[in-house]
Amino acid sequence: MVMRGSPLGRRIRQLSLPAAGSVKIKLLLCCCICFTLIALAGRASTFMGRKHRNGFSDRSSVPRKGYAILINTWKRNDLLKKSISHYISCSGLHSVHIVWSEPDPPSDYLVKCIDTIVRSESKGDRRIELKFDINKEDSLNNRFKEIKDLEADAVFSIDDDVIFPCSSVELAFDVWQSAPDTMVGFVPRMHWLDKSRNNMRHYGYGGWWSVWWMGQYSMVLSKAAFFHKKYLTMYTNEMPASVREYVARNRNCEDIAMSFLVANATGAPPVWVKGKIFEIGTTGISSLGGHNERRTKCVNRFATEYGKMPLVSTSMKVVDSRNTWFW
Amino acid sequence: MVMRGSPLGRRIRQLSLPAAGSVKIKLLLCCCICFTLIALAGRASTFMGRKHRNGFSDRSSVPRKGYAILINTWKRNDLLKKSISHYISCSGLHSVHIVWSEPDPPSDYLVKCIDTIVRSESKGDRRIELKFDINKEDSLNNRFKEIKDLEADAVFSIDDDVIFPCSSVELAFDVWQSAPDTMVGFVPRMHWLDKSRNNMRHYGYGGWWSVWWMGQYSMVLSKAAFFHKKYLTMYTNEMPASVREYVARNRNCEDIAMSFLVANATGAPPVWVKGKIFEIGTTGISSLGGHNERRTKCVNRFATEYGKMPLVSTSMKVVDSRNTWFW
Repeated sequence: MVMRGSPLGRRIRQLSLPAAGSVKIKLLLCCCICFTLIALAGRASTFMGRKHRNGFSDRSSVPRKGYAILINTWKRNDLLKKSISHYISCSGLHSVHIVWSEPDPPSDYLVKCIDTIVRSESKGDRRIELKFDINKEDSLNNRFKEIKDLEADAVFSIDDDVIFPCSSVELAFDVWQSAPDTMVGFVPRMHWLDKSRNNMRHYGYGGWWSVWWMGQYSMVLSKAAFFHKKYLTMYTNEMPASVREYVARNRNCEDIAMSFLVANATGAPPVWVKGKIFEIGTTGISSLGGHNERRTKCVNRFATEYGKMPLVSTSMKVVDSRNTWFW
Repeated sequence: MVMRGSPLGRRIRQLSLPAAGSVKIKLLLCCCICFTLIALAGRASTFMGRKHRNGFSDRSSVPRKGYAILINTWKRNDLLKKSISHYISCSGLHSVHIVWSEPDPPSDYLVKCIDTIVRSESKGDRRIELKFDINKEDSLNNRFKEIKDLEADAVFSIDDDVIFPCSSVELAFDVWQSAPDTMVGFVPRMHWLDKSRNNMRHYGYGGWWSVWWMGQYSMVLSKAAFFHKKYLTMYTNEMPASVREYVARNRNCEDIAMSFLVANATGAPPVWVKGKIFEIGTTGISSLGGHNERRTKCVNRFATEYGKMPLVSTSMKVVDSRNTWFW
């Protein structure tokens, strides 16, 4: 649900006591904890499913500041429609911006179809904007172009082939509201100082398994992350042009470039939010051979451009306390 | 380790590859996951204990911006010494401020003793300041008085009878650096709209069990929380005087008042960080009869003073990903 006209642009959420049914469920939970610890895990999802539906934690009835979805797509109209059909149902969504870099503009049929999907969720006070950001040039930098008429401060940058449940998106938006200057996302990545090269400062890039292995990360990828709209302006107008040129030339690493930009501006780590991810497309460039080598080159090239390594590592992970059993 | 003279006041952390021993430990972990899921939990602490000591995640060698500990004490010198002896060993500690509201000033013996404890950790570039903030008047508002010569932006407000491991304090400090305008703490509390009173807007206050029961919270208590030093100035000079007077008169709820102040300034929820808490003192006022009723009165009184309910509820919880097994 979107709010307008507030001086701070933010409003409070008020809570109501849980339904009696929820209390009974809690009592059942207590018995479960006492007598069948192992069985708990299996019952968790069912119980929490109910809990999410009680009046206490129902976000759909909650007024809050909205966010804009910035969705990057390339010749996958079916995925685009599927993705927008999902995210349009998430409370807090304020507008949809589709980054279009194909040679031909979107067909009238596609525009009409997506407009119909968006209108279907525009009810009552809720009016969701739809905009195609059409680019003549096909460059990975297009996804971070400045959007001058963006009302919401929060941008949820997302690829067209990944789906996160609304509950995960809303949790990440909660985190972003408390940390509006940093990146808040679902896909962590890491870097490390490669000490095997004694005579030169060289960094390594680590994917998901490295993050799991180490328990630390220093980036969250823009394929699924919240950040402040001011970073779109900074990416296009203030970030070293050499970084944008490298991204355009190599058709890779625009997400690493954004991570460097935000870390350099805040001096703080990004925030990783635990969320269920559903891949609805075919595998992308990350599955190609030599992917990590190319990403490692980017990290080292950008560190040289900045004259330092701005990325900050951390081990913090945000989870939904409604889904955790022990504190 | 404390850093000074940085333009941004913040520095990067760089990582080195893990020791071979760590890799072996990880392989052992994989076997454990494959064959003995239940046994994992029991082994977690041991394994992670090792992992924390490898070069990758050793915080003691990491340059970072410091924080000031603001410790509130009352006629419990032994606890005060024990508490400072612990926190002084945590990396990132910049200075120690003791809020002293007893009729008599601290004895020379106590001052000398604590000064010796603090000096014992001041090595190399690390110089930890010690300051007694002596108040003539005994008021709960003393703990949030403005500190004009505070160098660090981050304040870690702590009671003298609770101890958190340095790893938990450093994790919370990581979170605060990404969310410097909000409160980041270890002790969550909640409020709810009491719908049983149809004709009037009445709120309830919920303690730990309510938070666990609901899976949501809207406050973190200042008995163990990070916040920006600017809120000390705002608490003393900008917060409604009637709120300070209520706190002083009722000798309660200064922590709720600070939660209202920060939530009103940010419009965002606080952040709860999961940490191990060790109570080293006897039970406090929270164990007295009628505690929740008094806290409920405070919540309703402060909401009236603000003319709205500024507290924002959330279910986000920060955990240390080095201590979690499944993602």
